[in-house]
Amino acid sequence: MSNKVHVGSTEMEEGLRNNKWKVLEPSEKIKKIPKRLWDVGKEDPRRVIHALKVGISLTLVSLLYLMEPLFKDIGSNAIWAVMTVVVVLEFSAGATLCKGLNRGLGTLIAGSLTFFIEFVANDSGKVLRAIFIGTAVFIIGAAATYIRFIPYIKKNYDYGVVIFLLTFNLITVSSYRVDSVITIAHDRFYTIVIGCGICLFMSLLVFPIWSGEDLHKTTVGKLQGLSRSIEACVSEYFEEKEKETSDSKDRIYEGYQAVLDSKSIDETLALYANWEPRHTRRCHRFPCQQYVKVGAVLRQFGYTVVALHGCLQTEIQTPRSVRALFKDPCVRLAGEVCKALSELADSISNHRHCSPEILSDHLHVALQDLNSAIKSQPKLFLGSNLHRHNNKHQNAVSQRNRANAVSLSSFRTDTSALMEYRRSFKNNNRSETTSAGERRMLRPQLSKIAVMTSLEFSEALPFAAFVSLLVEMVARLDNVIEEVEELGRIACFKEYDNSRDPTADDVRCEKPANVVISVGAAE
Amino acid sequence: MSNKVHVGSTEMEEGLRNNKWKVLEPSEKIKKIPKRLWDVGKEDPRRVIHALKVGISLTLVSLLYLMEPLFKDIGSNAIWAVMTVVVVLEFSAGATLCKGLNRGLGTLIAGSLTFFIEFVANDSGKVLRAIFIGTAVFIIGAAATYIRFIPYIKKNYDYGVVIFLLTFNLITVSSYRVDSVITIAHDRFYTIVIGCGICLFMSLLVFPIWSGEDLHKTTVGKLQGLSRSIEACVSEYFEEKEKETSDSKDRIYEGYQAVLDSKSIDETLALYANWEPRHTRRCHRFPCQQYVKVGAVLRQFGYTVVALHGCLQTEIQTPRSVRALFKDPCVRLAGEVCKALSELADSISNHRHCSPEILSDHLHVALQDLNSAIKSQPKLFLGSNLHRHNNKHQNAVSQRNRANAVSLSSFRTDTSALMEYRRSFKNNNRSETTSAGERRMLRPQLSKIAVMTSLEFSEALPFAAFVSLLVEMVARLDNVIEEVEELGRIACFKEYDNSRDPTADDVRCEKPANVVISVGAAE
Repeated sequence: MSNKVHVGSTEMEEGLRNNKWKVLEPSEKIKKIPKRLWDVGKEDPRRVIHALKVGISLTLVSLLYLMEPLFKDIGSNAIWAVMTVVVVLEFSAGATLCKGLNRGLGTLIAGSLTFFIEFVANDSGKVLRAIFIGTAVFIIGAAATYIRFIPYIKKNYDYGVVIFLLTFNLITVSSYRVDSVITIAHDRFYTIVIGCGICLFMSLLVFPIWSGEDLHKTTVGKLQGLSRSIEACVSEYFEEKEKETSDSKDRIYEGYQAVLDSKSIDETLALYANWEPRHTRRCHRFPCQQYVKVGAVLRQFGYTVVALHGCLQTEIQTPRSVRALFKDPCVRLAGEVCKALSELADSISNHRHCSPEILSDHLHVALQDLNSAIKSQPKLFLGSNLHRHNNKHQNAVSQRNRANAVSLSSFRTDTSALMEYRRSFKNNNRSETTSAGERRMLRPQLSKIAVMTSLEFSEALPFAAFVSLLVEMVARLDNVIEEVEELGRIACFKEYDNSRDPTADDVRCEKPANVVISVGAAE
Repeated sequence: MSNKVHVGSTEMEEGLRNNKWKVLEPSEKIKKIPKRLWDVGKEDPRRVIHALKVGISLTLVSLLYLMEPLFKDIGSNAIWAVMTVVVVLEFSAGATLCKGLNRGLGTLIAGSLTFFIEFVANDSGKVLRAIFIGTAVFIIGAAATYIRFIPYIKKNYDYGVVIFLLTFNLITVSSYRVDSVITIAHDRFYTIVIGCGICLFMSLLVFPIWSGEDLHKTTVGKLQGLSRSIEACVSEYFEEKEKETSDSKDRIYEGYQAVLDSKSIDETLALYANWEPRHTRRCHRFPCQQYVKVGAVLRQFGYTVVALHGCLQTEIQTPRSVRALFKDPCVRLAGEVCKALSELADSISNHRHCSPEILSDHLHVALQDLNSAIKSQPKLFLGSNLHRHNNKHQNAVSQRNRANAVSLSSFRTDTSALMEYRRSFKNNNRSETTSAGERRMLRPQLSKIAVMTSLEFSEALPFAAFVSLLVEMVARLDNVIEEVEELGRIACFKEYDNSRDPTADDVRCEKPANVVISVGAAE
């Protein structure tokens, strides 16, 4: 299955590309334009289809003007149909429906309100009527603008309120000069319906593009991206050679970045998917809110992956030799987490429930192996519970002695260096007003000292953080599984196919050596 | 200073409130509407001002219709002025300028193109001309829609392209029936200019609302929020009583949540701020891109805070008694980080460079104290470097023995429980097809076992993660300071006032006991 995710707006990818773009010379930019245009279509061929659909719709609606018999019926009001098509026809079916309904509703309400105002102001004189209309325009304009700030309205009906305001003003104001308001409103409504009809036909029946499908695909893609990220992160952490390649860094980053920044995209897609009638066949509704929830849980999960990536980039590094001691259980544990994520991705992608063995025994075995590996290395980590029953007082005394004897020797050097540096810094500060440039030069040095100091920290600390984050990840995986199962329940996913050979699992459990190999191969 | 942050779109707050809202009954909803309306204005009084401004602008533009002498000059084309005001007048000055320019540019280009097409198609017959216009509408429609997918166009000129398409279609199509295209275009352009003029007057001169200011305030607010989050997190972690109150949880969550979800808001504000002419007095440009960069660095910082919060919520908890041993240096270190963040917030808020002592000596002292505290507790963490020179072989043997003797006793119990459970689960699976309901019941148990297993992990592990994240935070703080200083440089901030008594610092350094108290008080 392709990992590529199609989103209407590709905000995620923009950042990187825009930066590259800005560096170019103007002449180079012009040379690159054809390639950029080609890339936009190649990234998502549905964009080309959408562009052609808009072209066809506009041509169709232009026929109202261009063909003699049609023009006779409709007349110059046909421009409203053109306007509707330009404004309403959006990339996905849901977005078009949402905008179309907003436009229709806004126009209808505005029309009704105009009639009411006409009715009230009808008998008054010319000047009084002008004052009345002016006041109404002011009040309605201010109120409608204010209402747009209510979050619920802003999210669902923002466009509708704008159209309401637009239509209300246009009709009310022009009604002052024209007597046949009813005719104007009627004709305009008629042409808007034609425009909306063309839009709906084009977006629902001709190569329709569904926001719900995009939401579905991005969710699968996010799960796969996280899995790739974790895999790359762990293999990077336990690699023999020191240097982090920018290639693997990109791979890790790309995997989780899409998840972190997904909030607004998810919500927009869910909003549009809400309007789409498509998923009524199997289930009563498309569970777009549940997809948003899965997205939120995945973001929570993603923050742990970011922290894990942070362990790779931190200044204080656990020596490779120490890491190697725990490589096996860590890689296996991460492998199991990745497997679970991939299984979830498959489950959503194929519209079926996930395997009941998704939190497989191998995960527990890996957790236990990691646990015993850590406990078997008391040099690095000594579980406090192992020693809790010992004589506390005696311990406390011996600790203090040991700490004084061993750690302070290397420690003092640093502190004195810091003090010395600080003194010179203070003197500098007093003797002359430090300029901004000087300060910028000094500060990096100061932070270098901070790094030096922190390097003195126990080297096991960052590794403990790494392991702790891996375990935390398992706990958060639980939340992800829960939400995906809930999704499966609401969206009436197919049952998981039990007939797949369960003995294969048993064989693996009996030969734990094989587990490592098979997981390694699965990576 | 008030911590409240004013953002045009309050996406951040929506999520929580919408959920509460959905739970209500319809009758309750109606009762709550006046309160909600009031809240919207109370949250940000500028919304009320904006609503009034729109009302006034619409009334002004309506005068074109309502007043006899004005109507004589402009005629029914005045609706275009009304339309322009409704569509162009936005909340902030930058947004209005952006939309106004887009509208102007779109109309101008569309007008020019229409003339060109008029010029080409002028001599041909009626039918040929219709075909020519239809083809042009199709090609231009498809091309303009396609161009909107280019990220750069989408970000900056999306609205302009829509207006271009709209105007082009309206003029081209109606030119087929009307001969005086030049007059139409001229009149329309004229009224659009009037509409834009009213919008610009209202948004730039009458109680102007600046996106740049919002961007500035959100950045300050984010720094303060992170500081509050870290403070609450650490004080929560070292509190005596076990239970995490939902109040402190909310405080922690609110602090960083705004940072995590800030990407799209920041970018929108920066885009609009880019158009605002306001900040030219002191500096040649408002450095909106630098604000976006600061936002990105803060998000990176925020991910560490999330991970820190994760340490509070994780299933495996370090006993409170163990935590208490390290409370002092941890609280001081976190206090110093918070102080640095607050100093950065003050620096941005007051448009001055930050103190050269922002990474103060206290930070280093706290780091060192934490280091020695950890080294003085070999029961919990034993730096691998302390023992590296010992006899490796001897160690390895004794390790293995100890591990076997101590840890496996408690460990086996769990493993056997897991195995037993797994067996019964497998049997269930084979004898009958598990229904979805059953599976849902079984899985939580399975994950409970996972938790049980992981509880056996060394309890020092999560604390090590907590400390490691604190130290990591100091490293990331460095990036934040760098970007804020760069911001200060670009935005020509005032110099830091050196005359503030520097001896106060010295006194504190000499009496380290005071440091704790003063930091504690600062919290």
